[in-house]
Amino acid sequence: MNFPGNTQVPSFADIEAASQRIAPRAVRTPLLENAYLNEAVNGRVLLKAETLQRTGSFKFRGAFNRLSLLDDSQKAKGVVAYSSGNHAQGVAAAAKILGIECTIIMPNDAPSLKIANTRNYGAEVVLYDRKTESREAIASKFLDDRGATLIRPFDDPQIIAGQGTCGLEIFEEANERDMAINAVLVCCGGGGLTAGIALAAREMSPASQIYAVEPKGFEDTARSLAAGKRLENAPDAASICDALLTPSPGELTFQINQQLLSGALAVSDEQVREAMAFAMRNLKLVVEPGGAVCLAALLAGQFDAADKTVAITLSGGNADPAFLADVMTAT
Amino acid sequence: MNFPGNTQVPSFADIEAASQRIAPRAVRTPLLENAYLNEAVNGRVLLKAETLQRTGSFKFRGAFNRLSLLDDSQKAKGVVAYSSGNHAQGVAAAAKILGIECTIIMPNDAPSLKIANTRNYGAEVVLYDRKTESREAIASKFLDDRGATLIRPFDDPQIIAGQGTCGLEIFEEANERDMAINAVLVCCGGGGLTAGIALAAREMSPASQIYAVEPKGFEDTARSLAAGKRLENAPDAASICDALLTPSPGELTFQINQQLLSGALAVSDEQVREAMAFAMRNLKLVVEPGGAVCLAALLAGQFDAADKTVAITLSGGNADPAFLADVMTAT
Repeated sequence: MNFPGNTQVPSFADIEAASQRIAPRAVRTPLLENAYLNEAVNGRVLLKAETLQRTGSFKFRGAFNRLSLLDDSQKAKGVVAYSSGNHAQGVAAAAKILGIECTIIMPNDAPSLKIANTRNYGAEVVLYDRKTESREAIASKFLDDRGATLIRPFDDPQIIAGQGTCGLEIFEEANERDMAINAVLVCCGGGGLTAGIALAAREMSPASQIYAVEPKGFEDTARSLAAGKRLENAPDAASICDALLTPSPGELTFQINQQLLSGALAVSDEQVREAMAFAMRNLKLVVEPGGAVCLAALLAGQFDAADKTVAITLSGGNADPAFLADVMTAT
Repeated sequence: MNFPGNTQVPSFADIEAASQRIAPRAVRTPLLENAYLNEAVNGRVLLKAETLQRTGSFKFRGAFNRLSLLDDSQKAKGVVAYSSGNHAQGVAAAAKILGIECTIIMPNDAPSLKIANTRNYGAEVVLYDRKTESREAIASKFLDDRGATLIRPFDDPQIIAGQGTCGLEIFEEANERDMAINAVLVCCGGGGLTAGIALAAREMSPASQIYAVEPKGFEDTARSLAAGKRLENAPDAASICDALLTPSPGELTFQINQQLLSGALAVSDEQVREAMAFAMRNLKLVVEPGGAVCLAALLAGQFDAADKTVAITLSGGNADPAFLADVMTAT
């Protein structure tokens, strides 16, 4: 459990330092509880509402932490990131606060709200075609020309430490309120939030089981855990969970998750739509598809919360209004 | 300022007692802050999210407090309430928890979500026609036949004390976080929440100015404050803010509000729709029309928050999905 030989794995002290670093700018998001949901699953559900985080997702945590640690020369040369939208907004907002020039490479089919918001934070947005172009190739052009720093979405120790602050807050509040958390379900794309929360749990609440939740077709973490090595998703896989569409687990994140997770679950698009509608109707929260996978896992019975205290992440809320309207009226 | 001769006005001790009484069942709702909103109004806005309260509005506070104080004989004979929906749900949910039989008289044009939820809490719902029937007459039948207790929506000391717990929480958290609140804007129908928060402020934060916010056409509190006596709204007035459509200020609530308010503001339906869309898009919160009037007042510039710290209530989130979808896509 000590990640022998890997000095890249953030320590708990890194998460604590990140928490101090982001405190003046990030939202300490509430850990919400809803009587109707508790009754529905016959357990106690604690909702970590990262939908209410600055930029509408947890991604601001890691981005602000990472960018704060750049030295002056790096800051002067700017940063580049590729992202379908939430990491983009997190990096753009953090860069704006810190006065750093920022270029974001985004797929042209990203939700328009995410593209617009990223531009509104002052970032230069470069769109590419997910099917025919390589975001890495486009990014490397900016990196070479400007000497900019690439801010990876998840496979970076200080990004993982930043996302870990979400877990730190969950367990701090659980301790304050005298609640023993049996399990935490985490929305999982590349696995940065999952790894960060798992590292926080290892220190603060080792008895809590940590599960990754993925969209069907993108259960690369589930399959990789089973195989004991990183596997890729099928190239033609599709899901409405735009925030979670990574080709495979990260190298560093998988190393952590392989050691610390109790398992991984997968939910269908239809289950996600139902969870989003439930959230708007009953929780009064706007949750984007990728942010609703854990709630979907509970409501669809993929995870049995009966007689348990289960914390789940609602990792983001950046969905296009027309899509939200469709989900709300169709379900 | 001592409400001479009126022993009905709840004391601060009544609010504190209510807070203890409701604590095991009510949500201590978060006081949220959003960087984008702060920038939009060039001030600091604290959002008291009663949308996240049990039953989706602040009304559970007063209802549970009031019902808890019934004696056993009263509890056995049941309770009756009339309400367009939020008080209905609050009373029904409180009655269910306390094992009290409950009848709710609701207008047949109340949002269907509110009617359905009230029934789901186990209440008997009696619908009436707002234009041709008297809810008081219908209620009195149940009161006479069963010896039930009428639970008034606002003009009741223990209802006001219960709603005052919302103010108590705002000022407690402001103190903990070292924030001086310059003003509180409160969604105002009959004035129960407004009066409760004003009473809490008088004790905990006397420098905070308290404002009622009403829908245009239902600015009875504004006009009554100006006239120095309770005035009625025009009988043909209409607004999308179904939760705030009271004919006039309450007798007791107006007595309190007349002494303690700094003023009252009014917002149009269009401003409310824009505020609801802003809340879903930027705050990731579902807010019903009546719950969005304070946000509307800020965004429309009816209240200038520049360089101020302003707390506002988002008093409820119980809107029909089709209406929310329309607001979200049309605005």
